[in-house]
Amino acid sequence: MKTSKVFTNPTILKILDYYKNLWALSYAIGIAHWDLETYMPPKGVGARGEALGRLSTIRQKLFLNKDFVSLIHKSQKINNLTDEEKAVVRMLTRSLKFYEKLPSKFIEEFENLTNKSTVVWREAKAKNDFKLFKPYLTKIFNSNCKMADYLGYVNSPYDALLDQYEEGLTTKYVENFFLEIKNPLKNLLSKIMNAKPARIATQSVAGGYDKQKMSELNDKILKYFWGEYGQNFRLDTSTHPFTTSFSKSDTRITTWYHDRDFARSLLATIHEFGHALYDLQSADELEMTSIAGGSSLIIHESQSRFWENFMGRSESFIDKFLSDMQLAVHSSQLTVDSVYTYFNKVSPGLLRVEADEVTYHFHIMLRFEIEKEVIEGRLEVRDLREIWNAKMKDYLGITPENDSEGVLQDIHWSGGSVGYFPTYSLGTFLGAQWADQMKVGPLQTRPLEGPTFVKLWLRNHIHKFGSTYTLVDLLKKNGMKFDPKVNLKYLQEKYSKIYNF
Amino acid sequence: MKTSKVFTNPTILKILDYYKNLWALSYAIGIAHWDLETYMPPKGVGARGEALGRLSTIRQKLFLNKDFVSLIHKSQKINNLTDEEKAVVRMLTRSLKFYEKLPSKFIEEFENLTNKSTVVWREAKAKNDFKLFKPYLTKIFNSNCKMADYLGYVNSPYDALLDQYEEGLTTKYVENFFLEIKNPLKNLLSKIMNAKPARIATQSVAGGYDKQKMSELNDKILKYFWGEYGQNFRLDTSTHPFTTSFSKSDTRITTWYHDRDFARSLLATIHEFGHALYDLQSADELEMTSIAGGSSLIIHESQSRFWENFMGRSESFIDKFLSDMQLAVHSSQLTVDSVYTYFNKVSPGLLRVEADEVTYHFHIMLRFEIEKEVIEGRLEVRDLREIWNAKMKDYLGITPENDSEGVLQDIHWSGGSVGYFPTYSLGTFLGAQWADQMKVGPLQTRPLEGPTFVKLWLRNHIHKFGSTYTLVDLLKKNGMKFDPKVNLKYLQEKYSKIYNF
Repeated sequence: MKTSKVFTNPTILKILDYYKNLWALSYAIGIAHWDLETYMPPKGVGARGEALGRLSTIRQKLFLNKDFVSLIHKSQKINNLTDEEKAVVRMLTRSLKFYEKLPSKFIEEFENLTNKSTVVWREAKAKNDFKLFKPYLTKIFNSNCKMADYLGYVNSPYDALLDQYEEGLTTKYVENFFLEIKNPLKNLLSKIMNAKPARIATQSVAGGYDKQKMSELNDKILKYFWGEYGQNFRLDTSTHPFTTSFSKSDTRITTWYHDRDFARSLLATIHEFGHALYDLQSADELEMTSIAGGSSLIIHESQSRFWENFMGRSESFIDKFLSDMQLAVHSSQLTVDSVYTYFNKVSPGLLRVEADEVTYHFHIMLRFEIEKEVIEGRLEVRDLREIWNAKMKDYLGITPENDSEGVLQDIHWSGGSVGYFPTYSLGTFLGAQWADQMKVGPLQTRPLEGPTFVKLWLRNHIHKFGSTYTLVDLLKKNGMKFDPKVNLKYLQEKYSKIYNF
Repeated sequence: MKTSKVFTNPTILKILDYYKNLWALSYAIGIAHWDLETYMPPKGVGARGEALGRLSTIRQKLFLNKDFVSLIHKSQKINNLTDEEKAVVRMLTRSLKFYEKLPSKFIEEFENLTNKSTVVWREAKAKNDFKLFKPYLTKIFNSNCKMADYLGYVNSPYDALLDQYEEGLTTKYVENFFLEIKNPLKNLLSKIMNAKPARIATQSVAGGYDKQKMSELNDKILKYFWGEYGQNFRLDTSTHPFTTSFSKSDTRITTWYHDRDFARSLLATIHEFGHALYDLQSADELEMTSIAGGSSLIIHESQSRFWENFMGRSESFIDKFLSDMQLAVHSSQLTVDSVYTYFNKVSPGLLRVEADEVTYHFHIMLRFEIEKEVIEGRLEVRDLREIWNAKMKDYLGITPENDSEGVLQDIHWSGGSVGYFPTYSLGTFLGAQWADQMKVGPLQTRPLEGPTFVKLWLRNHIHKFGSTYTLVDLLKKNGMKFDPKVNLKYLQEKYSKIYNF
């Protein structure tokens, strides 16, 4: 083991040494997942599921090794630990609680259920048929209720699920957050919809694009953001963009190219880069420990959203790559202003992944409300399509014409995740706070000239700590607290300029 | 577990159930290796080595689980087992012997050594500097001597190493084999070198090629060979072509494109397909057991060589894809005859991987003699370059101008493999025997019209058994025994026609 100043306690060192086995298994599981989404021949899916199930079980058994559990218990009583050592204990205690409270049979059955559900969901989505997916979704919500019971909660079973994705997040907190942002966003959206968008010229940019040129542009952008692109970081293509990090010297993102809108490919690449950067800039000392890279989904999403919204949608960024964008869409008509207004167009749509900065949060509110109601037992899965469509009409004034654009659009539920969505909105709001702290962005004085300053700032204030701090502690360390008003103000000012109201 | 007629014994069923854990770990290790050679960003190599080392150790520990070892011991005493059940016992007994005889510390150190050595070998090869690699190669040979001592042997320590790659193969057997083929091949080569190769027109085919077109041709060939290409089988690019199979529904090969000779890319693709087919056609019942796919390296190489030499180098195959080859090399001058004589040109060269069917075996003899001499203590690693060059001069009349074309050309030693090379020659010779049995090939009456008959024959006589039988038993089952004369006769007759003597 590398000599390190942050880990010196003998018990912690023993823990970290044994932990490398768990790290290696997670590493292998990570590659198998990445491959599943990128290069695996489709018929390999059955054996892949079987292998992943076994590997999870092996990891669980290795985690529950008596000596290791004793070491964790022992470490919980040590007083003079460094912040990083405390974090190791905190993270392992969290995992231990999960393994100890959930019967291994339940974990295995849940894994099998979600493997099958993902396959059925894909089929149901392709066929626009919610009925196909309904029995699986019912089981998934039931299993999540059971999981909440196993894990325990004080107020709502939904609390136990939220906590899995974001340490300490509660239903009440999320409710208050949405309560705070709902009306301001409704008002803003209404102003935008009533404005005369004279500047918004989408005709010349919304057409098709050259996939090869777009792929080269993505490479060029990533090389500009990260000099070692290709050396410790790569980009591939998958059905849905994602980020995975096997080590800080091997971090990977994916993007997509499957529609006519070049902004979707470009902004997805930048969004995922934001996630990747967290792992790429985590401190060396944390490698192969339980606190390498980010763990808080809200912090993670604040990174991806920061890069997407404040870098990707900025005039200076568009200016930098305008000629490449012109090549990609085969149009010399593109101007900085036309791309800027296009990237920042606000328009209610059916799909969350296509949503703009304003309407996005209504998509999340809808999902949060549905999840909470089902988990708290006030809503049946069989009524989900109707509820979905009614809420969509209420929030955005539009109705899905089919299930694949409605209740079947997201992969999350089929994968077993209930309680994940709120982190998207909370993360996006936090992203605006980082911009505010850095004094970058459209409302700020510091011009966003290249990624160097931003990367350094993020490294020193966030990334280098990996998972050392919880969301609350990290904000405290940076002299901040979560404040939705920052993003609301940013949205108000930015869009009043674009839409001229 | 699937109901199966081949596995019914309760002890064997218990063994197979536990074995799935080992299978899952091998599966994960397999993906990590495949990724390392295909898509891994170069800086990921350190963490990858660390993860692979840990995963091997975990697999070893799981293998040596007391209950599992007891089951293996118990199974060794059962009498009325099916052939497949016997094979499960045989294969696990072989692995158990390996783990029980080699100290785990030795395995770990050897793994670390070979990880480092591969890196140093790459550097040494790039710099043409054997001196750089020499200390590592010395350690690798020393470790192999130590390994032979741990494993035990009767006559030569080299026997213990050969046995690792081919069950039961001995130094004496390999010596006799080379003794039998050496002079006939020398005579054949001398006749070829003295012949007037009027038909051999290489000028129009040895030029550069269009990588994109060549890649499309490789796809087309594989689709022709295997209808489900892309569904359960894929092709990628790597520094050196190889085959890996995660399951029979996810088998992968790689090829290369890095020189001006299109035959190298095409024949490598076909060669690896021969390996892949073994796994693709293994019986369903054997999936996730210790006898899925082939284990004998000689049988495996007999498959790849059969496809390469009897399919890829055949007139009917060339005829089938002639227009695609013309596109790939941008030349309409190509004829079946010009490509046929080009694919079957005999010419002493420095590189094993570029060698033709006749000179290939001298490359292997050289390596075998060197390995045997070093392991038996009559040759020092420091003299390897001189011995290599002297033998090359003796056998093929040529001398390497630099180490990368000489003693540094193969990856095998850096990866720790000593005793592997002989299986290449033995497998090639066995390949000709399969052609003889099937009555296909240039000397046979049955025309090689498409792959359907050949695939079916190979499935029924070889592939479906997976690793059920040893080489000797498989030959016996097919009413055959290993006979080098078959290949010698084939070479003699084929090349006397081409070279007109």
